[in-house]
Amino acid sequence: MSKNTQVKLASRPVGDVKPTDWSIEKNPIPTPSEGEFLIKTIYISLDPAMRGWLNDAKSYIAPVEIGAVMRAGTVGKVMESNNDRFKVGDYVHSYAGVQEYSVSNGKDVYTVDAKLAPLPAYLGTLGMPGFTAYFGLLEVGQPKEGETVLVSGAAGAVGSVVGQVAKIKGCKVIGIAGGPEKCKYIVEELGFDGAIDYKNDNVYKGIKQYCPKGIDVYFDNVGGEILDHALANLRMGARIAICGAISQYNNKENIVGPKNYLSLLVNRAMMKGLVVFDYAKDYGKAAKQMGQWMHEGKLKSKEDVYEGIENFHETYQRLFTGQKMGKLVLKVGEE
Amino acid sequence: MSKNTQVKLASRPVGDVKPTDWSIEKNPIPTPSEGEFLIKTIYISLDPAMRGWLNDAKSYIAPVEIGAVMRAGTVGKVMESNNDRFKVGDYVHSYAGVQEYSVSNGKDVYTVDAKLAPLPAYLGTLGMPGFTAYFGLLEVGQPKEGETVLVSGAAGAVGSVVGQVAKIKGCKVIGIAGGPEKCKYIVEELGFDGAIDYKNDNVYKGIKQYCPKGIDVYFDNVGGEILDHALANLRMGARIAICGAISQYNNKENIVGPKNYLSLLVNRAMMKGLVVFDYAKDYGKAAKQMGQWMHEGKLKSKEDVYEGIENFHETYQRLFTGQKMGKLVLKVGEE
Repeated sequence: MSKNTQVKLASRPVGDVKPTDWSIEKNPIPTPSEGEFLIKTIYISLDPAMRGWLNDAKSYIAPVEIGAVMRAGTVGKVMESNNDRFKVGDYVHSYAGVQEYSVSNGKDVYTVDAKLAPLPAYLGTLGMPGFTAYFGLLEVGQPKEGETVLVSGAAGAVGSVVGQVAKIKGCKVIGIAGGPEKCKYIVEELGFDGAIDYKNDNVYKGIKQYCPKGIDVYFDNVGGEILDHALANLRMGARIAICGAISQYNNKENIVGPKNYLSLLVNRAMMKGLVVFDYAKDYGKAAKQMGQWMHEGKLKSKEDVYEGIENFHETYQRLFTGQKMGKLVLKVGEE
Repeated sequence: MSKNTQVKLASRPVGDVKPTDWSIEKNPIPTPSEGEFLIKTIYISLDPAMRGWLNDAKSYIAPVEIGAVMRAGTVGKVMESNNDRFKVGDYVHSYAGVQEYSVSNGKDVYTVDAKLAPLPAYLGTLGMPGFTAYFGLLEVGQPKEGETVLVSGAAGAVGSVVGQVAKIKGCKVIGIAGGPEKCKYIVEELGFDGAIDYKNDNVYKGIKQYCPKGIDVYFDNVGGEILDHALANLRMGARIAICGAISQYNNKENIVGPKNYLSLLVNRAMMKGLVVFDYAKDYGKAAKQMGQWMHEGKLKSKEDVYEGIENFHETYQRLFTGQKMGKLVLKVGEE
């Protein structure tokens, strides 16, 4: 008889997440009640934000409870349905979490079109990371044609879209990424104007070299020292979009604050945080626009797909070691 | 024969400014050429920003050169004039610096009306500190009626105006100041809704107590730990105006960055720097509005006036020890 493999949070991690912070259980596949439907998970999204969800702290979303299935965005297939809006065979995006099967009443679930784009793209460029990039850059960053845009985590799911959209908007775009392979990728494949390899280059000097007039928009995914280097190179009236701080997520102590924050004063600059959920009502508009750009070849989407729900922890770790290229996805079922 | 006593920068201070970083010279009183006029300095403005002007670093204004008269805003009287716009006997605001006499061609000089307000007020509420408060609060902070506004340095020249203008705009206003006397003053004299004594109270608990729903607008004059406490208590969509960081100005090492800056992300909040010079074209409007409020008794201006140009260093130090109440002014000549 089929079982539902689930990855649950066993204990709250301190610093780096350990394999023992998860428990893997096999439970019966749930049955949909009236108005509900059963989803088989196919692709699970792995996101840096997951680390924050594990902390018992006030944040933009409630922490994952001990003993609960780990939260994750997913793309799956409807297998049984008692809900008129979702038919058997539909592909859907939901927050089913790290498990093979789930039941939903349709709340926060939407169908995706497997003919328009490969399913993993709906977890990347046409999903939360893409929307984060789109709204964070355009609404918070407000880039103007000819301005210089710097983005960290530039080869990642969010950063790669930020840079490409900024290029579409007529900006000069410099990316910060880890290692020569990623740097080559963002320049040669994605059309960035320059790349700084934070693992091998001096980031401060790299910014000086590629942004001699300073930075108009900095889209920050990493925090830490790189944020400080960006602050030290702002242009008058610059905007910083704070999207994440992956360099700080596993700190056991306090995170490191940006010691150059007074550059905001000197340069009359602005630093603003963003959470993609605030733009939910406009996701459709963004998806349509980005789908169009993908169709026209202006926007490339890259997913790095690993397989097997039992490999969740090992795949998750790639977010922090950087051993992945583009959007990190775990495949746990067949299309 | 009369002489012009001048305070010049003798050496660049590292950390706290020492008396030996200044030299006091007596030089001949200058003679105005064609189009120029001679100003006798009466009041000299002492401002925390002065510390920044002493550093040889890129900032919003060039550093004071070694051997140059120390920069300062001043109110003085025209004694001789070869300029049609300025007549003998006019009182004028200028950046004459820390000296008894200066010559000007009228650039960046404006007359002030001794009948409308006491002359020292033109260095405080009706001068740069008042304009800084007015534009920083209203343009960067964007307070709305019923919102909670927190201001540090609340008994100072800028903070006291920020709080009073926020009250006029219908906000709940909490001030952070050093010592029971200042705290009593801002509540009982200026009408703040609450005061936190950072020298004797736990600031974090004080904010929790007085701002139970969190902070909508934080106007920061001090930086350091207090900025972090404010960040930890933001409301959704909060705005932080970065006006200064007096707690950090005398640091010999790097300044301390706000470790809680990711609260900007969680709360979709915004932190923006401001420099009053950007609003120069609207100074007149602000002066008129604040003069009106002063006339109506809604806005109180307090200056703490010390005397004698030879006491410049000792008076300047009061900015950092907090031994002053309201706008700090040095009187160096008779009205």
